[in-house]
Amino acid sequence: MDSTFRRIPDIPLQDLIDGLSLGNRAFLSRAITLVESKRDDDKIVSAELIDKVLKPDAKSLRIGITGVPGVGKSTFIEAFGRMLTGMGKKVAVLSIDPSSSRTKGSILGDKTRMEELSKDPNAYIRPSASGSSLGGVASSTRETIILCEAAGFDVIIIETVGVGQSETVVKDMVDYFLLLMLAGGGDELQGIKRGIMEMADHILINKADGNNLKAAKQAKEEYKNAIHLFPPNDANWTVPVGLCSATERTGIEEAWEEIQKYQQQTTGNGWFAKNRKRQLLKWFHERIHAKLEMDFYSRKDIKEKIKEREELISSQQISVRKAVDELFN
Amino acid sequence: MDSTFRRIPDIPLQDLIDGLSLGNRAFLSRAITLVESKRDDDKIVSAELIDKVLKPDAKSLRIGITGVPGVGKSTFIEAFGRMLTGMGKKVAVLSIDPSSSRTKGSILGDKTRMEELSKDPNAYIRPSASGSSLGGVASSTRETIILCEAAGFDVIIIETVGVGQSETVVKDMVDYFLLLMLAGGGDELQGIKRGIMEMADHILINKADGNNLKAAKQAKEEYKNAIHLFPPNDANWTVPVGLCSATERTGIEEAWEEIQKYQQQTTGNGWFAKNRKRQLLKWFHERIHAKLEMDFYSRKDIKEKIKEREELISSQQISVRKAVDELFN
Repeated sequence: MDSTFRRIPDIPLQDLIDGLSLGNRAFLSRAITLVESKRDDDKIVSAELIDKVLKPDAKSLRIGITGVPGVGKSTFIEAFGRMLTGMGKKVAVLSIDPSSSRTKGSILGDKTRMEELSKDPNAYIRPSASGSSLGGVASSTRETIILCEAAGFDVIIIETVGVGQSETVVKDMVDYFLLLMLAGGGDELQGIKRGIMEMADHILINKADGNNLKAAKQAKEEYKNAIHLFPPNDANWTVPVGLCSATERTGIEEAWEEIQKYQQQTTGNGWFAKNRKRQLLKWFHERIHAKLEMDFYSRKDIKEKIKEREELISSQQISVRKAVDELFN
Repeated sequence: MDSTFRRIPDIPLQDLIDGLSLGNRAFLSRAITLVESKRDDDKIVSAELIDKVLKPDAKSLRIGITGVPGVGKSTFIEAFGRMLTGMGKKVAVLSIDPSSSRTKGSILGDKTRMEELSKDPNAYIRPSASGSSLGGVASSTRETIILCEAAGFDVIIIETVGVGQSETVVKDMVDYFLLLMLAGGGDELQGIKRGIMEMADHILINKADGNNLKAAKQAKEEYKNAIHLFPPNDANWTVPVGLCSATERTGIEEAWEEIQKYQQQTTGNGWFAKNRKRQLLKWFHERIHAKLEMDFYSRKDIKEKIKEREELISSQQISVRKAVDELFN
């Protein structure tokens, strides 16, 4: 299943574009597979495709959702997505899973985890892109977002596990970043990365039901107090702390109301468009840097020289300055 | 005063090394100026110098201190530094000030802000290195740390203002990161960058004196609760929240006790050495990336091409993929 060796079905580019613009999910899947391909001939077609389907006036909303394994992300997205399709919206669910190369799609490999949503004609669920680098996966996902928008999807949900570097990457490709948490203080957070809480536009405490409700309410107050100590975010948005139960489907509509409030406020003050532009330019330079580094680090002579110097640096036998000078001379 | 044009006094390298190892502050200043120089001939000598004075067994402690302007960093460092020199330690104070290129050293340009410490024979205060990029300033500061350690300084304090990107840079060059705060909830934090609180190894609420004491005590409890919600840091260290008054010199010794506890714990479990090694290798690769980018972006043809493409990307007339492809073809 490695996309390096995956052959892309040979469809004329214009047919693919037409199929996409009609919202055909089979064509969307083919387009995504094309964009993920690492074959040189596919790359040329991909660049044309992406370029032709760009929609400067896309009215989509891109929502990032993160939380530790076990917080109930799939169940939440199932309930949240079904609510949105019920309103007539088209919902795409993508994922960035840093562990997927090892576990073959631990988040979304199994579509049955969102059983109702995966059968919903107005929803599209795409398992995590695989790739050797997080940067590469991120670029594929950004392009997949463009394809989904070209296919008429209104809400694009990007799911990730908040344990590695992936949440920073997701934060940089979405309009809104939602953090799912559990009640009970620090223990449940053992797995979550530091810094994520301050990146969130919304904190939602899941599993606020049954015997857990009291603890969830208390956690809500604690997070509210903690949030109050944080400096305001760039969008000048006061981060809401809410409760929900994905299994009992409570608090989901309230969460959507907050998201809409955010969209309204940031569209009004210009932040929404400004943020997307900033993300695009950042992505541009990230790809330039990635290309420069890839070209350099993939040189066989360089690989060996770097390894030698890393050892000398670690044991403090050589300074960093000298090691770099030697590398480039 | 731009170091590009600053001529370095011509001292034989071995004399400079000997002077350094004797702890001579005039020689230390000369060595730092040499390392900060951007002249090509100085760069060659600098690389030799840094390489020769590397001390694999340096027993120093590098402490980063940050906080918004007005929190009392200088007064704190004056009190803290004097306490340390009183214990017979040699203390160096450096700063990373992202605004220094504009305001000519807004943090430490004026030594009179640490009047007692600057006259102390066991202290060395060096104003902020200036430079066009934060990466360049960071590299100079890292090398200045090495020079200070070669000159026998035990405690190296790196001061920065927690409003830009500089605190991430400082976090990556110190063993311990101390955040100074003020009482009073959210208002005072308007200027501080999101994410800093979760980077701190220690939160110290300054100006806990007089009429302010009650509010400071309350803030302490609030921060303690907030910290409790954060995931544990990599060193498995429970971040202490303390009170101090730099002007009344209270809470300073207690802060030092916490720092020593940290040093003991992380030296014992191997984190201290592991973290320094990680920092060195990260610095090595950062310098490689910086060199690659500098060589690329400084090409005149590239500059123009990038500018054109940035505009096309911003208005969504071209995809990022295509823009990058075109740039490298």
